[in-house]
Amino acid sequence: MAAITLRGARVATMLGGRADVIEAGAVAMRDGLIAWVGPDAALPAEHAAAEIVPLEGRLLTPALIDCHTHIVFGGDRAREFEMRLEGASYEEIARAGGGVVSTVRETRAASEEALVAAALPRLDALLAEGVATVEVKSGYGLDVATELRMLRAARRLADLRPVRIVTTFLGAHATPPEYAGRADAYIDEVAIPALRAAHAEGLADAVDAFCEGIAFSPEQVGRVFDAARALGLPVKLHAEQLSNLGGAALAARHGALSADHLEHLDGAGVSAMAAAGTVAVLLPGAFYALRETQAPPAAALRAAGVPMAVATDCNPGTSPMTSPLLAMNMACTFFRLTPAEALAGVTVHAARALGLADCGVIASGMRADLAEWDATAPAELAYRIGFNPLRRRWFAGAPA
Amino acid sequence: MAAITLRGARVATMLGGRADVIEAGAVAMRDGLIAWVGPDAALPAEHAAAEIVPLEGRLLTPALIDCHTHIVFGGDRAREFEMRLEGASYEEIARAGGGVVSTVRETRAASEEALVAAALPRLDALLAEGVATVEVKSGYGLDVATELRMLRAARRLADLRPVRIVTTFLGAHATPPEYAGRADAYIDEVAIPALRAAHAEGLADAVDAFCEGIAFSPEQVGRVFDAARALGLPVKLHAEQLSNLGGAALAARHGALSADHLEHLDGAGVSAMAAAGTVAVLLPGAFYALRETQAPPAAALRAAGVPMAVATDCNPGTSPMTSPLLAMNMACTFFRLTPAEALAGVTVHAARALGLADCGVIASGMRADLAEWDATAPAELAYRIGFNPLRRRWFAGAPA
Ligand SMILES: [Zn+2]
Ligand SMILES: [Zn+2]
Repeated sequence: MAAITLRGARVATMLGGRADVIEAGAVAMRDGLIAWVGPDAALPAEHAAAEIVPLEGRLLTPALIDCHTHIVFGGDRAREFEMRLEGASYEEIARAGGGVVSTVRETRAASEEALVAAALPRLDALLAEGVATVEVKSGYGLDVATELRMLRAARRLADLRPVRIVTTFLGAHATPPEYAGRADAYIDEVAIPALRAAHAEGLADAVDAFCEGIAFSPEQVGRVFDAARALGLPVKLHAEQLSNLGGAALAARHGALSADHLEHLDGAGVSAMAAAGTVAVLLPGAFYALRETQAPPAAALRAAGVPMAVATDCNPGTSPMTSPLLAMNMACTFFRLTPAEALAGVTVHAARALGLADCGVIASGMRADLAEWDATAPAELAYRIGFNPLRRRWFAGAPA
Repeated sequence: MAAITLRGARVATMLGGRADVIEAGAVAMRDGLIAWVGPDAALPAEHAAAEIVPLEGRLLTPALIDCHTHIVFGGDRAREFEMRLEGASYEEIARAGGGVVSTVRETRAASEEALVAAALPRLDALLAEGVATVEVKSGYGLDVATELRMLRAARRLADLRPVRIVTTFLGAHATPPEYAGRADAYIDEVAIPALRAAHAEGLADAVDAFCEGIAFSPEQVGRVFDAARALGLPVKLHAEQLSNLGGAALAARHGALSADHLEHLDGAGVSAMAAAGTVAVLLPGAFYALRETQAPPAAALRAAGVPMAVATDCNPGTSPMTSPLLAMNMACTFFRLTPAEALAGVTVHAARALGLADCGVIASGMRADLAEWDATAPAELAYRIGFNPLRRRWFAGAPA
């Protein structure tokens, strides 16, 4: 594999979650990994002898990581969006076949090929903004066969694009129509068997659930988490989005990688997450699209030392968003994160939310996944709205 | 000039502001204009004999029109954005050289070449989303030479890209530091002389002002508008953004093309605009970035039959946004426009806001400026967040 050294860069390593910049920096890449990073003037001779790419003062950051997405699904919900703005009630939308049920119906009807084809433009939009690692959840099949097909489609994306895909089994996302009113039976008869089948096929890197009045109770989630633990899989949770059911504390008790959304997180939940080392994944796209008014307690999370990640939550219903840069801007605007925190949220803290120790910072031994920007300061990335200053994406040490 | 006929398109003509779609439509282009539009099956033989481009069911709309931007300026305000999120007060930001004054300083220091170079990436971002016509305002020079240089830079953009530029003189945007506390003197000694000089050089297509407690009074704006009328130039106004000074009614009395922002517009203002035929230009990017809570009265404007346009307001301080598609989504999300209204807002109604009668709809005799989308229904354009489904832009009858 080629050795390439980037010189004359402004390097934001994101080590320690800080956005300090090495103003005249160099990054040496070899065999897909970062071999050296530091001031250009101190570049060791062996790396100065490699192929040199001058960055002419451009900003270099770790490649971005979108640690919470649902980019594999069938259909879209544009008509539902339109109906709601035209004044239709939720009942009218449901009668017209809308809501999450419509996505489940369209996902079940889609072949693996069709799911891959539908996901690719969404994936390409993420990559165009410097993303190298994408988490993809199941959760629109809600039957064994379709949950597995979603995860296979997600895995396939990594064969078709230079990207690393991390899969999450989210069978406990919603109760499908055929189990209406029988959520416990759905958990026992579908979600847990599907999880075991996904694990047997090597399709699940982690297990997620939706803990909410409209979804699953803490007790039901606990059963899914116990099944995950028996399989040796890490867990995470959609928690405290619309109300407080103690989901974050539940997640923390299970040693969760992350608790996500958290608009209604309370102090006890913050403390539990801090004690467990659970990452807070903030999803401002859903906050925005749902016109929420209660923001997650960013100040309390900051004070407690809970790492905050930021993700698109790309999904057809509540966040049809494919821009991590916009998610960063919205995290600043709505949740008052600093631009440095927003950048840490899509790099070092996003890696931690996925349990990945080999990416998210620019340091020797890490994967050489980098984003090169037509910008000079990290704050520029979160400052602009709907503008993509990506110059070039580096994936495993090569331009991609 | 080549004659090209697009066949097999889903055509949203936007005639009458409606987003009805001709499901199997054709558009014939000749000499840069639309020669025919209608059902594919009824395509006249002469147009069927032209070069045919099959659209395979893709959505075709008028090219987008961004009718309110400030894309020509020096510097950026990323550091100010960061300082504010790090807890700095407005005084601290001002002491650090921030605020609009910093943009004035950087714009004055920039050559015409530098202003053009800085604006091009912003312009390119607009074009990438299907825009063919962009309004560009002056207003960061606040001295005669720099105001004219900004307008010259704006005009130059049309030589460098396939785009139509409409310029607006906005000398009455803010009072520069050297006139602090002497706004009347600034209007008489700088703004109006600069306006006359811009007009003499053919640099101004229209005249705008900022009517607000922190900017200029209705009386001061009235003097600028009188000077504009004497030169035969149409007027428009930044009105009712932060408070209600009766700016919309003032604009209507002067037969303004548009009144823009309008968060604090009242019923009298709505009525005055309806009677005068003044377009309401909604700028959700600024609403979002400033975290406003009072939305413009879209329902009252709709009820009164006031056409609503939507624009990016791209500017370094209050809306560093370069995505008309995101502006559409935000107009729906924040202001409850329907997706069809949002699309009319960046096409037919935006044309009217600029006083242009030859674009904004797909109809015989109009400019052949079209946007071809990887979409099937107009609602998809406003539904997605931070995703650009543009397939191809047609400018004056040619792919661009
Ligand atoms: Zn989610
Ligand atoms: Zn403006």
